[in-house]
Amino acid sequence: MDIEEGIEVFPVLRLTEEGEDRTQGAVAREFPITIILNDEELVTLLGSPTDLEYLAVGFLASEGLLKSKDEIKSITADYKTGVVRLETLVKRELAQDTLFKRVISTGCGRGASFYSVADAVDQKVDSQMKISVGEVVSLTTEFQRRSRTWLATHGVHGAALCDTKSILAFNEDVGRHNAIDKVFGECLLKDIPTSDRAVLTTGRVTSEILHKVSKRGIPIVISISAPTNLGVKIADALGITLMASARGKRMRVYTDDWRVVRNKTRAV
Amino acid sequence: MDIEEGIEVFPVLRLTEEGEDRTQGAVAREFPITIILNDEELVTLLGSPTDLEYLAVGFLASEGLLKSKDEIKSITADYKTGVVRLETLVKRELAQDTLFKRVISTGCGRGASFYSVADAVDQKVDSQMKISVGEVVSLTTEFQRRSRTWLATHGVHGAALCDTKSILAFNEDVGRHNAIDKVFGECLLKDIPTSDRAVLTTGRVTSEILHKVSKRGIPIVISISAPTNLGVKIADALGITLMASARGKRMRVYTDDWRVVRNKTRAV
Repeated sequence: MDIEEGIEVFPVLRLTEEGEDRTQGAVAREFPITIILNDEELVTLLGSPTDLEYLAVGFLASEGLLKSKDEIKSITADYKTGVVRLETLVKRELAQDTLFKRVISTGCGRGASFYSVADAVDQKVDSQMKISVGEVVSLTTEFQRRSRTWLATHGVHGAALCDTKSILAFNEDVGRHNAIDKVFGECLLKDIPTSDRAVLTTGRVTSEILHKVSKRGIPIVISISAPTNLGVKIADALGITLMASARGKRMRVYTDDWRVVRNKTRAV
Repeated sequence: MDIEEGIEVFPVLRLTEEGEDRTQGAVAREFPITIILNDEELVTLLGSPTDLEYLAVGFLASEGLLKSKDEIKSITADYKTGVVRLETLVKRELAQDTLFKRVISTGCGRGASFYSVADAVDQKVDSQMKISVGEVVSLTTEFQRRSRTWLATHGVHGAALCDTKSILAFNEDVGRHNAIDKVFGECLLKDIPTSDRAVLTTGRVTSEILHKVSKRGIPIVISISAPTNLGVKIADALGITLMASARGKRMRVYTDDWRVVRNKTRAV
């Protein structure tokens, strides 16, 4: 894809225990894409806002709804709204258990309504919780030590709820959304409060992750991996501190860095 | 989660350009989980087969269908079938645009029917294509060099179609399934044949990836990342060569290793 179209740049605070600097960070864009086949709204995918024609055609072929190029009457992709319309000469029936059995591979989002950042503001998180750089380093070290299934397979994601000192609930799952839902499910069943606490995740921080986290009133998200642009924008709109690339003794803060306590001694 | 329940062990052929050895590799288990809320089938997720009660409760809470533990009348999870049944005292309406707008975050699977390995056998891939260890090393090196959005953001997945010598179509997307669909969409629109060719992916190889690849008659899948147990089982059933952890000059072959040409000189 065209790299310029797939990226958005945000200000980032880079931190170690010794120092900090402010820089610009490139983040992958995430965008809801709706495929309309012969005037029927088929599916909304979250993807990168590039090559939407390829995506729609490939998706339909994978789902058995399109066999060859010759079946296509027209394709129009609107890169502003994310709507791709396809007209075909051959109209295949949707197998009910294929397309409307809502199988979710690595977790689920909500409707397109949530993807407007403005809509999300009413769920703003109100918390004075703070965390230090040293505490983040300790927590992520413990988090990775506990990721036993990941260490054995490299095939799962981990998630945890923690306070500034220790991990309170931990889980792993092949789906990054499922790992977080398992942690929240355990908290709910065991009456473990989630507000004024942080979430740790090995996964990328997309819009859906922010949706789950904000529902629990959680003010801090710490990821080993990278965020998407919608992840950053929704965190910003909801007043959630988003830290990412937290590996070894380094981390990057994208939003609400006032919650991160550090020594302002020297540049990283 | 309990590490024993989340893992399955398969024989693996470890290869470098200099040698090989056969060992056992732990792979994350992937499993369809159906949540039934008050006798209504709500959703089927693909996840790890552990802590299904936590997953169901956390998922319902994230979707706004459950507010507290007190609302739960009963939960029963069948770890053999993956069915979790919840009865609640408070019955909330499903917001139509929340639950039945089929939003897919990182790609889509098919119905539960596909997850039976036996069902998949009729799509068996018939190809005599072979590839050498040196060719895989060259291709994955070129693949990573072209992953420009990944290099800038660490927030996307890459996918490519290649023959034994070069990359024929390449794309990136925040969703690992979307990246593959974009590649196949481009092939379909540009009349690039996909049979007797290999797919490269940065993503984990789950059942859905095998589903997409087998539809195109592709005999070889090479991943930078790890497979799941269903990925290995479906590849095996369909006669697809599954290579994973292809980083630097090393790789692991899980199925149909007769397609991989190598020097049997000495152990890795």
